[in-house]
Amino acid sequence: MNDRALVPSSNEQAIIDALGHRAKKASSVMAGASTAAKNKTLRMAAQLIQDQATALEKANALDLERAAVAGLEDAAIDRLRLSPSVIEGMCKGLEQVAALPDPVGSISDLSRQPSGIQVGRMRVPLGVIGIIYESRPNVTIDAAALCIKSGNATILRGGSEALHSNQALAACMRDALVDAGLPADAVQAIEQRDRALVGALIQSPQWVDVIVPRGGKSLVERISREAKVPTIKHLDGICHVFVDRDADLAMASRIADNAKTQRYSPCNTMETLLVDTPVAQAFLPVIAAIYRDKGVEMRVDDVVANILKTAGIPCLAASEEDWSTEYLAAIIAIKTVDGIDEAIQHIHRYGSKHTDAIVTAHHGRAMRFIREVDSASVMINASTRFADGFEFGLGAEIGISTDKLHARGPVGLEGLTSQKYVVFGQGEIRQS
Amino acid sequence: MNDRALVPSSNEQAIIDALGHRAKKASSVMAGASTAAKNKTLRMAAQLIQDQATALEKANALDLERAAVAGLEDAAIDRLRLSPSVIEGMCKGLEQVAALPDPVGSISDLSRQPSGIQVGRMRVPLGVIGIIYESRPNVTIDAAALCIKSGNATILRGGSEALHSNQALAACMRDALVDAGLPADAVQAIEQRDRALVGALIQSPQWVDVIVPRGGKSLVERISREAKVPTIKHLDGICHVFVDRDADLAMASRIADNAKTQRYSPCNTMETLLVDTPVAQAFLPVIAAIYRDKGVEMRVDDVVANILKTAGIPCLAASEEDWSTEYLAAIIAIKTVDGIDEAIQHIHRYGSKHTDAIVTAHHGRAMRFIREVDSASVMINASTRFADGFEFGLGAEIGISTDKLHARGPVGLEGLTSQKYVVFGQGEIRQS
Repeated sequence: MNDRALVPSSNEQAIIDALGHRAKKASSVMAGASTAAKNKTLRMAAQLIQDQATALEKANALDLERAAVAGLEDAAIDRLRLSPSVIEGMCKGLEQVAALPDPVGSISDLSRQPSGIQVGRMRVPLGVIGIIYESRPNVTIDAAALCIKSGNATILRGGSEALHSNQALAACMRDALVDAGLPADAVQAIEQRDRALVGALIQSPQWVDVIVPRGGKSLVERISREAKVPTIKHLDGICHVFVDRDADLAMASRIADNAKTQRYSPCNTMETLLVDTPVAQAFLPVIAAIYRDKGVEMRVDDVVANILKTAGIPCLAASEEDWSTEYLAAIIAIKTVDGIDEAIQHIHRYGSKHTDAIVTAHHGRAMRFIREVDSASVMINASTRFADGFEFGLGAEIGISTDKLHARGPVGLEGLTSQKYVVFGQGEIRQS
Repeated sequence: MNDRALVPSSNEQAIIDALGHRAKKASSVMAGASTAAKNKTLRMAAQLIQDQATALEKANALDLERAAVAGLEDAAIDRLRLSPSVIEGMCKGLEQVAALPDPVGSISDLSRQPSGIQVGRMRVPLGVIGIIYESRPNVTIDAAALCIKSGNATILRGGSEALHSNQALAACMRDALVDAGLPADAVQAIEQRDRALVGALIQSPQWVDVIVPRGGKSLVERISREAKVPTIKHLDGICHVFVDRDADLAMASRIADNAKTQRYSPCNTMETLLVDTPVAQAFLPVIAAIYRDKGVEMRVDDVVANILKTAGIPCLAASEEDWSTEYLAAIIAIKTVDGIDEAIQHIHRYGSKHTDAIVTAHHGRAMRFIREVDSASVMINASTRFADGFEFGLGAEIGISTDKLHARGPVGLEGLTSQKYVVFGQGEIRQS
């Protein structure tokens, strides 16, 4: 995507205007849709996806062929594939979202005021959600399901390499909506490959209430810079584990191992391990041996290097850049710090406000850490890998936000809604 | 303010960088400040304002002289004046904010997950709040007080006509902060009149977490268009009262009178009255007589015009423009509608998503109205004038938001905070 490609022409704006107009119209119907109709849509979509597996595979084959011709890497082609297990996963996901409580319409904090009026807050959909994502076609179903359940309409823009698959999946959703008596236009997937449509979409606050960009950093960065619509997003996941001087070292190595090696590519994987100086000598050779055995490259400061040298464990010298790099790979940066103050300073300076954890048995420092570390998820004695909508009990996840306004951390159904004030009166008027 | 004035030069950016750097530093201290220290600051500021009344009046006199020379209108000069009652109001406001519960640090929704971790949400400050406001210097104190209590730092930019007054008031706040052991830079008021500083401020997401523009529509419109920082704002207050066919007509005229005439200039004042056709004949002559006696000009549709003509009450024909005009004056638009569907359609088409009310004794239509009208505050049988932080029980108000994300409706202390996830573990790691 180059800079020029994002500037929409009047033709592209006309396409988005047509999509946006239909989405807005559908969104008012969806806002009033019953929980039963929304759940029926999701269960019906699961049924249609199973029934139409052959057609889906055919559409998917077109994308796979095109990708092979274009010379895409095997990993990228793999992400594109609608395998039986991916299809099963989508259907299971639809059932799970159907089983979640409907957030729309709940009224909280209802209280009587001195004037006599009762004031509360009612949860309502945001309206139209734009989702911009890369390669994996199952996002079409996962994202649309959350938008439907939360009473929103959605405009989907997947990767152009998955165009046929995304269109086929969106068609299942649209058919299911109609079967349940809801408007098909509650789910629209952009049909054109033209990249300037993304520019038009994210600059149309008259049609779209929020944009959720899901994908690589360059995509998310570009979209959040250009958007005139609010976004729910995170750019980096530079997550830290700080092993405090009062940590249970067996627990610390279990957490530091899991946070780094359980999976390398997720955003909630630890990238930098901070070790309190008094326990460095005892802790580092243990955790470093685990990393060495799993093939994790260690980039370390001088103190760590000396300790590992003595232990006979190979490592590289870290550069300044390593402290702010999201590796998403079998590489870790390791640094010693002199106490919690230096740890917190390091996290504020180099972190990305995503997820950070302390391992300690000391209550005061544990509470200081969760209070003072300004990240979306802050943890005591747990692996950063838990920063996830399912693990947090949200039942689903549309993404993770490192923004401060609206939604922070894993974003579930509630993040696709907002609250308006409702007032129940008996004829009250204001006196002053 | 013309377009060019908002484009910052490197000199202006340097001024904002210096302010922003100090604000960021102060904000980390404020985030950890004790409730006692924050309350001490507010009470001390009230004391200082009373003690230094003479000095404040002197600073205010400089602004008043300059305003008189510049030929400002009497009303504008009046808004500028730090009269004894305005000073008393600020001090009372400080005491009220000190008495409010501290939102920072509260943990809600703490629950144990299947993995064993406990997950909750902790309320935390946003960081640095930029407040841009016009004329009334008391906003300096009111806004700073809310930012301090919610643990934020603030950069204030008042109207240049109130520069000396704002500086003197900010100095009281800064002295009070220091007295309480908190950083003076938690409150900074921009000293320069240069308007391009506003442009630099609202385009500095590296320093400012949210901008609250308070003032006339053109100011708010300009700022929200140019800002690269999220804003909390409302542009218009085109509020409606819909008198349903099943309304208690005595209640309806009490509410329609209060919503329009209790005060003409607030944003929550009704601008358009919608009357259900079956009660138009019985209701309109009554309410119109009240408006006529209070000197309210009525701009009406044909049906209303005929009824009022028979009743001998003068009115004007409404133009299309009247349905989307915020008069902020003794003028009202009146329209008949055929039932709740047309009323809701009218509100969606012409309203501003601020505050709308229905008057009805019919439960089903009352509930439909609050569910389907997509406004920040929706009311049953109460005056729109209640849409206000104090009347809603928030204890204070930094502004009213018609945005959908983050804060909607009156914004109190909670709107200046967000929630991060906190995880309490006992060494849990993720299995899959």
